[in-house]
Amino acid sequence: MSTALKTDTSKSSTTKDLILASALKIVSVHGIEGLTIGELAKSVGMSKSGLFAHFAAKDQLQLEVLKRATQHFVDVVMRPAFKAPRGEPRLIQMTENWFSYLNEESSLPGGSILIAASVELDDRPGSLRDFVQQAQRDLISNVSRATQMAIDEGHFKAGLDVDQFAWSIYSFVLGYHHFKRMLNDPKAETFYKHSMEKLMEAARKDNVNASSK
Amino acid sequence: MSTALKTDTSKSSTTKDLILASALKIVSVHGIEGLTIGELAKSVGMSKSGLFAHFAAKDQLQLEVLKRATQHFVDVVMRPAFKAPRGEPRLIQMTENWFSYLNEESSLPGGSILIAASVELDDRPGSLRDFVQQAQRDLISNVSRATQMAIDEGHFKAGLDVDQFAWSIYSFVLGYHHFKRMLNDPKAETFYKHSMEKLMEAARKDNVNASSK
Repeated sequence: MSTALKTDTSKSSTTKDLILASALKIVSVHGIEGLTIGELAKSVGMSKSGLFAHFAAKDQLQLEVLKRATQHFVDVVMRPAFKAPRGEPRLIQMTENWFSYLNEESSLPGGSILIAASVELDDRPGSLRDFVQQAQRDLISNVSRATQMAIDEGHFKAGLDVDQFAWSIYSFVLGYHHFKRMLNDPKAETFYKHSMEKLMEAARKDNVNASSK
Repeated sequence: MSTALKTDTSKSSTTKDLILASALKIVSVHGIEGLTIGELAKSVGMSKSGLFAHFAAKDQLQLEVLKRATQHFVDVVMRPAFKAPRGEPRLIQMTENWFSYLNEESSLPGGSILIAASVELDDRPGSLRDFVQQAQRDLISNVSRATQMAIDEGHFKAGLDVDQFAWSIYSFVLGYHHFKRMLNDPKAETFYKHSMEKLMEAARKDNVNASSK
């Protein structure tokens, strides 16, 4: 957690949680640059100066929102997957959790904050972009490492390019988000699940036999 | 073309072209909602009222920018691909053109306008979203139809799900854009090309033999 939280009492933490929950909704619709102190104050029913008691500046608030969104992703996608057995079961659990997360995120008015923030920030150097970039690199490394475990466990064939595999998973995640949110395509779920299945199938040790069945 | 262009003389069309070229650059960085008449006027060295002689209102300007970006995509990705022979060669040409387009778009300060507009507009009902949504559906239908031709020509196996195939292509496009622009990953190109190759390979009529080689 940010060092800025060190002096929080539990009461101000709760208030902060409420503020961040409102901020997440605003960012979900208007983007990270569209988060204004004025609109946020209105949505939580506080004065602007009341808000500033919790966040020193707008960029600190923006960073906290991105940290919160990232932490939520870790809590609902990555951490529960680590309870599944190492190897393919864990990877499958990860993609299933990710799918649920994308649908849950869709219940936020504007969809995935992290995907939107990537598009918004990719050309804006600074601490917000650095944070999102690092968070996504960590995430992709986690997928690569989980893939390597599937090789080590003998589920996937040796020599599989684990980074290529992680890239494919991430591409399908982006595809699902796009087809569901932008195109409102009723087949988005089928496409996502089928592509993930084929990806796992091609990575399996016995894939030559499987594909000639 | 828009009916608003009907009364254009060639001179005002040229001015309009210059305005739209500047507008594209602004949108590429600040998004479609970040396009202000004031900033655009400054960047083309015109007065606001001079701009309004060409565009009746901001939303008309935004729509023209999206139309221009879409037309550019059609001109550099789709149209040249239709010169390649029907079937797999045309599909491969399409993905290669798309790759070049993404790199060219990256030379715009903020990357692909159409991808950014999708994320920005997905939760904002209205004529801009409708336009982008329809343009993307048309695009994906074109890819599906080109895939169907590859089946008809005997290049791809019968029974291949052409919509699933088109979805995979689109997912890899999104993946490439993301890994290159947001993550600045030097392996993005290799990932993209390898995934496209594997996708074509799996779709080929003789893929069972190919995979057991």
